[in-house]
Amino acid sequence: MNISYRLADIAAQLGGRVLGDSEVCVAQVATLENAQARHISFLANSKYRAQLANTRAGAVILGESDAGATDLPRIVSDNPYAYFAKVSALLNPLPETTSGVHLNAFVGADAQIDATASIAALAVIGAGAAIGAHSVIGEGCCIGANTVIGSHARLYPHVVIYHDCLIGDNLIAHSGAVIGSDGFGIAMNEGRWVKIPQIGRVVIGNDVEIGANTTIDRGALDDTVIEDGVKLDNQIQIAHNVRIGAHTAIAGCVGIAGSTSIGRHCRIGGSAGILGHLHIADNVEIAAFTLVGKSIREAGSYAAIFPFSKTEDWRKNAAHLRHLDELAKRVKTLEQEIALLKGKEQ
Amino acid sequence: MNISYRLADIAAQLGGRVLGDSEVCVAQVATLENAQARHISFLANSKYRAQLANTRAGAVILGESDAGATDLPRIVSDNPYAYFAKVSALLNPLPETTSGVHLNAFVGADAQIDATASIAALAVIGAGAAIGAHSVIGEGCCIGANTVIGSHARLYPHVVIYHDCLIGDNLIAHSGAVIGSDGFGIAMNEGRWVKIPQIGRVVIGNDVEIGANTTIDRGALDDTVIEDGVKLDNQIQIAHNVRIGAHTAIAGCVGIAGSTSIGRHCRIGGSAGILGHLHIADNVEIAAFTLVGKSIREAGSYAAIFPFSKTEDWRKNAAHLRHLDELAKRVKTLEQEIALLKGKEQ
Amino acid sequence: MNISYRLADIAAQLGGRVLGDSEVCVAQVATLENAQARHISFLANSKYRAQLANTRAGAVILGESDAGATDLPRIVSDNPYAYFAKVSALLNPLPETTSGVHLNAFVGADAQIDATASIAALAVIGAGAAIGAHSVIGEGCCIGANTVIGSHARLYPHVVIYHDCLIGDNLIAHSGAVIGSDGFGIAMNEGRWVKIPQIGRVVIGNDVEIGANTTIDRGALDDTVIEDGVKLDNQIQIAHNVRIGAHTAIAGCVGIAGSTSIGRHCRIGGSAGILGHLHIADNVEIAAFTLVGKSIREAGSYAAIFPFSKTEDWRKNAAHLRHLDELAKRVKTLEQEIALLKGKEQ
Repeated sequence: MNISYRLADIAAQLGGRVLGDSEVCVAQVATLENAQARHISFLANSKYRAQLANTRAGAVILGESDAGATDLPRIVSDNPYAYFAKVSALLNPLPETTSGVHLNAFVGADAQIDATASIAALAVIGAGAAIGAHSVIGEGCCIGANTVIGSHARLYPHVVIYHDCLIGDNLIAHSGAVIGSDGFGIAMNEGRWVKIPQIGRVVIGNDVEIGANTTIDRGALDDTVIEDGVKLDNQIQIAHNVRIGAHTAIAGCVGIAGSTSIGRHCRIGGSAGILGHLHIADNVEIAAFTLVGKSIREAGSYAAIFPFSKTEDWRKNAAHLRHLDELAKRVKTLEQEIALLKGKEQ
Repeated sequence: MNISYRLADIAAQLGGRVLGDSEVCVAQVATLENAQARHISFLANSKYRAQLANTRAGAVILGESDAGATDLPRIVSDNPYAYFAKVSALLNPLPETTSGVHLNAFVGADAQIDATASIAALAVIGAGAAIGAHSVIGEGCCIGANTVIGSHARLYPHVVIYHDCLIGDNLIAHSGAVIGSDGFGIAMNEGRWVKIPQIGRVVIGNDVEIGANTTIDRGALDDTVIEDGVKLDNQIQIAHNVRIGAHTAIAGCVGIAGSTSIGRHCRIGGSAGILGHLHIADNVEIAAFTLVGKSIREAGSYAAIFPFSKTEDWRKNAAHLRHLDELAKRVKTLEQEIALLKGKEQ
Repeated sequence: MNISYRLADIAAQLGGRVLGDSEVCVAQVATLENAQARHISFLANSKYRAQLANTRAGAVILGESDAGATDLPRIVSDNPYAYFAKVSALLNPLPETTSGVHLNAFVGADAQIDATASIAALAVIGAGAAIGAHSVIGEGCCIGANTVIGSHARLYPHVVIYHDCLIGDNLIAHSGAVIGSDGFGIAMNEGRWVKIPQIGRVVIGNDVEIGANTTIDRGALDDTVIEDGVKLDNQIQIAHNVRIGAHTAIAGCVGIAGSTSIGRHCRIGGSAGILGHLHIADNVEIAAFTLVGKSIREAGSYAAIFPFSKTEDWRKNAAHLRHLDELAKRVKTLEQEIALLKGKEQ
């Protein structure tokens, strides 16, 4: 690739204020530490300001409060991290794909593939499915019957979407993601489990990204819903009938049990879990490794992490957890006895 | 689809007692909240009885104790949830598949495919493998050499089963499930790991369901065994030489370490873990997010969850966990001092 | 297979000292419990010495201190477990694969496939990619453009490696593993997430094994690095820009957040987690289910596990965790009051 931009061009497209030589050309983004003359770097947090002194970057993106902290050609932005993201997108356009259906793809009856879409080798598009404009379906993807995918989707190789799902525009789905598999619905009957058919769908809004090997089950009766702008990292499990509110971001390995609804603009840390049938309010932040076992009605930050320590210390401390109730009772007894002693004193 | 059943027909097939108009026709199942006239709904738990008042369902399935709680046409059953599951299966038969091997499937030498089985495009059946009657192998599935799959299996797209595994009847396996991959067997030798060949199999009984992206490793020397009727949700990891007893159900994201055996009729909550070389008795229930670090000899319910709270409260409380042993000692000292003071009093 | 070895042949190849009849032939490895006459078994831990008495194995591998504990033909080794691993590798060579590119594989322009490599049906090798000598790429694997894989790799079916990754010799990757997917890089901009292009690579050293459905994200700007000899179990999530030191072994379901670097020769237990931007020293052992939330500068063993108990006991004890700070303050108050009382006494 030979893409490069003058700072002036970047600011013309993305806004921001250029300080220093606006004719400087940059061809790639890089960290302050590893940047070279053709790179543009960024300072998102004033606390790393010292790194500006040694960078060999050709230009830097930074916030108003750091605008004077370097003499390098620079772009000043209210939100240098988001600005950097946009510059990187300019400098790193997605590789072009050829539109059309590969000779070795399989397209079912009555499927509607937009003429600008690209269906790679070994992809399977089920009967009655629809693929929107400029969408790219990677090698080996399987799209189930009657599933509808909007425009500008990008499915990396080996994404599976089951039948009858409804997906908005701009979906990014990484390899191994499975969307629309059966929810875990079973009923006990005379010592054996009976399967409950999962007849709901998965409905996904616009601008959603789904990480590698993440799974989203279809609803049991009603739908599983992922609203606009939701970002899911890798290896997340979303059970049937979950609803995830718009612009919520969830880190890797999180599990969300059935019928729970999560608000908008939430942030959920890695390997956290949320039990089923709960409601989580908007703007809730949940720490990594935290299990949420009750509904959260109030925005804010929640946690439940056992602090780690050397194993020998952990062992000594953790042993008391099995007797914490007794310890609390002993403290109460002590308080009563002290009260008694103090009473006698007086 | 145009399937519908009169209540009388349903009861004739599945048992139960019809109250009200048994000629009412239902075509689909639905929740009490969303049901319409052509739907049959259910009430599995008397605590939701109030929802009966507003439902527009054409008919309802309920238990004996709720039989009089509505005037709607209804079927009374001992186990309304399981009954509903069976009605849903009647109304939602699996889509028909064409038997035979797709032109673009790959079948190895000496593989035995029953004439009623269906092998989809891009599926690969290894040499010497066998696929039983009415089994459906989805697009892109890979079945290893000499693996035997019983009758009525349903493998969704992209299931991988390694060589030499043995699988009973009625398997359901969802996309991305991997069965028979190598166990994590390594031996340290002069600062480097040496791989231990994993020469056992995975042996799976009848009526097992395996969720999307769940992994079951083959045994190191002996086999990994999943007994009849086991139900596994998504993203579960089952290590080599584990044995899971019949009719045990395991929720998503659970990890079970090597050589552990789990009893029959257990229920394991999401993201729980069980360490290796343990024995779990029959009828054990393990809460979500709980690590089981010792064998459990007695049926019952077990848990180990750190209760969540606002992060600021959590921080204050959790800090003491690193000093719990000291706190317990301080309480003991206080008790001794109180005893001394009380002694002096007398 | 008809492979068998005399004990004398084994010792000639692998070292160790034969005691008893060195002409005994063994054809397979087995546990002491299940071994038959044609099997060689092993005793890695003197504590299981009693099992020697009843084994029907034809020969045994054991350590110096157990050399006299049986009369069976035996090989004495300093490290019987690693010795057994090597014997098993002798007796269980990988199935032979035919070199060459299957007619139904897809190879992009300018890809370099070594003449001794084997590319299976339905594999896709991207433009400009390179596959080294004797490497085996399984059915349905996708190797991205310009990715380089060294010699003697073994990719089981359905491994996906994105573009521009660099992989050493002797890689083993199990089905469903995804290498090089985008890291979870997003920036908040006026209430919406903006994607940060992930332009780093995944760089993997020699002798690495990657388990089924494990995911390794490419770097955001710099690379994600897996050093030589690292062994990863199933369903592990490794975020962007993580570095894992040589010969570290990680058990299933572990999640490692972005930009964390882990030392050499570490061992990380199942379902553990490590937060982002941390440094873990060499030779650190982390217990299963433990979240590491701060850097670890010192070799040793670390843990943070909530001990499980019967649910009713857990409930009673865990309730106090939300009031631990208060309990600690009450103990402090008691100490002050006792001190006061004792002061008055004197």
